[in-house]
Amino acid sequence: MKRILTMELSRHPGERVRLAGWIHARRDLGAVSFLILRDRSGLAQIVVGEPVELAAESVVELEAIVVPAPQAPGGVELHEPTFRVLAEPAEPPPIELRRPQLKETLPTILDYAPVSLRHPRRRAAFELAAASLHGFRAALEALDFTEISTPKIVASATEGGANVFPFDYFGRRAFLAQSPQFYKQTLVGVFERVYTTGPVFRAEPHDTGRHLAEYTSLDAELGFIRDHFDVMAVVREVIAGMVGAVRERARRALELLEIELPDVPVEIEWLHFADTGVDDVDLAPADERRLCETRELLFVTGYPMAKRPFYTHPDSGRPHYSNSFDLLFRGLEIVTGGQRLHRYDDYVAALDGNTEPYEGYLQAFKYGMPPHGGFALGLERWVAQLVGARNIRETTLFPRDLNRLTP
Amino acid sequence: MKRILTMELSRHPGERVRLAGWIHARRDLGAVSFLILRDRSGLAQIVVGEPVELAAESVVELEAIVVPAPQAPGGVELHEPTFRVLAEPAEPPPIELRRPQLKETLPTILDYAPVSLRHPRRRAAFELAAASLHGFRAALEALDFTEISTPKIVASATEGGANVFPFDYFGRRAFLAQSPQFYKQTLVGVFERVYTTGPVFRAEPHDTGRHLAEYTSLDAELGFIRDHFDVMAVVREVIAGMVGAVRERARRALELLEIELPDVPVEIEWLHFADTGVDDVDLAPADERRLCETRELLFVTGYPMAKRPFYTHPDSGRPHYSNSFDLLFRGLEIVTGGQRLHRYDDYVAALDGNTEPYEGYLQAFKYGMPPHGGFALGLERWVAQLVGARNIRETTLFPRDLNRLTP
Repeated sequence: MKRILTMELSRHPGERVRLAGWIHARRDLGAVSFLILRDRSGLAQIVVGEPVELAAESVVELEAIVVPAPQAPGGVELHEPTFRVLAEPAEPPPIELRRPQLKETLPTILDYAPVSLRHPRRRAAFELAAASLHGFRAALEALDFTEISTPKIVASATEGGANVFPFDYFGRRAFLAQSPQFYKQTLVGVFERVYTTGPVFRAEPHDTGRHLAEYTSLDAELGFIRDHFDVMAVVREVIAGMVGAVRERARRALELLEIELPDVPVEIEWLHFADTGVDDVDLAPADERRLCETRELLFVTGYPMAKRPFYTHPDSGRPHYSNSFDLLFRGLEIVTGGQRLHRYDDYVAALDGNTEPYEGYLQAFKYGMPPHGGFALGLERWVAQLVGARNIRETTLFPRDLNRLTP
Repeated sequence: MKRILTMELSRHPGERVRLAGWIHARRDLGAVSFLILRDRSGLAQIVVGEPVELAAESVVELEAIVVPAPQAPGGVELHEPTFRVLAEPAEPPPIELRRPQLKETLPTILDYAPVSLRHPRRRAAFELAAASLHGFRAALEALDFTEISTPKIVASATEGGANVFPFDYFGRRAFLAQSPQFYKQTLVGVFERVYTTGPVFRAEPHDTGRHLAEYTSLDAELGFIRDHFDVMAVVREVIAGMVGAVRERARRALELLEIELPDVPVEIEWLHFADTGVDDVDLAPADERRLCETRELLFVTGYPMAKRPFYTHPDSGRPHYSNSFDLLFRGLEIVTGGQRLHRYDDYVAALDGNTEPYEGYLQAFKYGMPPHGGFALGLERWVAQLVGARNIRETTLFPRDLNRLTP
């Protein structure tokens, strides 16, 4: 008999079926016990008329009859089960998975991630992440972008020297890449339009709810643009694609977490930095929240050059400002991007002649590069904003920070 | 006027169109010059009646009239062009991109990767890689696998202690992950079926054509299997999906490189290690080539436990052999996989009680894990076998090895 999933049960009333999964919870009511089976698709209730010795998190295969039961989760129950135990836990789990919401503190939840991630609400957040990744790629492939794989072992810091992890590379000094920035720009010279998704590394010395030492960056870059508004148009397509993919592919997770997806307008509103009312070179978190009081999505454009990296293209009319942008979503910056310099001489000037550590990167510009730009989106931050998590660790499978290197 | 691509030209005979790209080559024949324009889709010939000062790798936008010309590449030529120069190279390129095949040595090609990758034949290999990635994901998503992001900063070596890169992580010793093995297994406990694509790191002290210090690993893992043959059935679907995606999405690259894709049979042939005629605990490269003399694809199963990692599940009938496999493709191992141990006590025994460095990993087994297995495929190796490259550096955008850390 072929295994089916708990979410398929309602299509099999009266049939004897085979299922497999974990014993999520049990409740003994005298002569009758109720077991909850958990599989990758959801939960199902099993009614057992005789005592069964099955501890929580036992892994089982079972055959049972599907009986309509409007009061039960999913509208069906399983009767007359016969079990085959595939594995038993060595000790009782340290996390009470049977609760509708976990009651443990975040540090405990993270210390026992291999177990706590089994909770349907924890798992759901990562189903949103997987769907978002799918939507990101599909949106860009529809726009003729090519996927690339860029090295994480690099010879120089991308985004400035402070927060990198150095290490010994066969007797030479190497770093973990802070971003795929140099490589995605270089490959605009090859494929014109590229994207990559993968880990980036920041030796972030601050213990905040918004920063991690390793996170998943979704990056794109494209050539033959007029300015950063062409990049923002791509960002709009990507966000719409991610929201659409989440809606289609993660329906159960959305329902479980009671999430409202944002409406992505055909044109996302934008506001120049000079018009934000901020008298500084960057927005503070409170500014980002204030600007989102009346809208979910907002581009802030033209950040002062002083706060953007050396490869940023200035606003030719007002060179104190840049052709850059951030996208704010529900009060937090989730995308950062802009137009980049594309002329070799502009790089030599921006680097103050200190070109030697960037020699490989600068080849691209030395031998002809079109006007181009791109953006990066932090996957865990995006999901945190979707689910309303206060701490980015809640939407990271195995977070890495100042204190946390395991599990 | 909207820009079109060179590959679209034949649909616009007699029209004035706009194009953009790089000056790939030029040929002066007295009163007439021929320029070759390169964009992301291919090449096009431009006929110029008057002298133009456009160096190789100049980035241009142009408008011109499309004239049918059976003798020209693509069957059309561009006449009466007007150019707008977007960027000029600072010096002549160090790679002669205009040749049908690059004549430079591999070290030179790699030293100037930002330029040499612009060559249509170099670029084509990475179009195969992008299509393969798409096929890998699509095949697994059709089988209800969930994409995961696993940490690359880890506390212990996955595949043994020799070839890891250690580094200082906020005062603690950390390593670059040699594989996502521990995390994909752990997440079988959450999603049952998972996959991930991303960089892995090996401090490989050998300077061979088959090994790199960083490569892209395509990994999958699934629960509720009977044994490794269930995993091999998924590998078959994945290989068929990758071949199909390459055929559909990288047609131009296949034609340019004159590649024959393999036929993927409904069941890929398999041979037990004991029947390979090899009197050792592993296959040598010559054995792999010999076994592929009469077939393109072959699973070798049941490798001796002595050569497989500690998490490998033994063959219960013949515990000297394992429930593992490699997939050979045209004489080289491209996939390795197998069934894993799933009982906590088996891990404690396999680790000889030295469980402390693996505490986070072992949580998964302590709290109930189903029989499971998985596999890993090296993307660059796969593409190298497809294109018939002798050296894996030819199919790696920016290779990292004993000597090479840039570009």
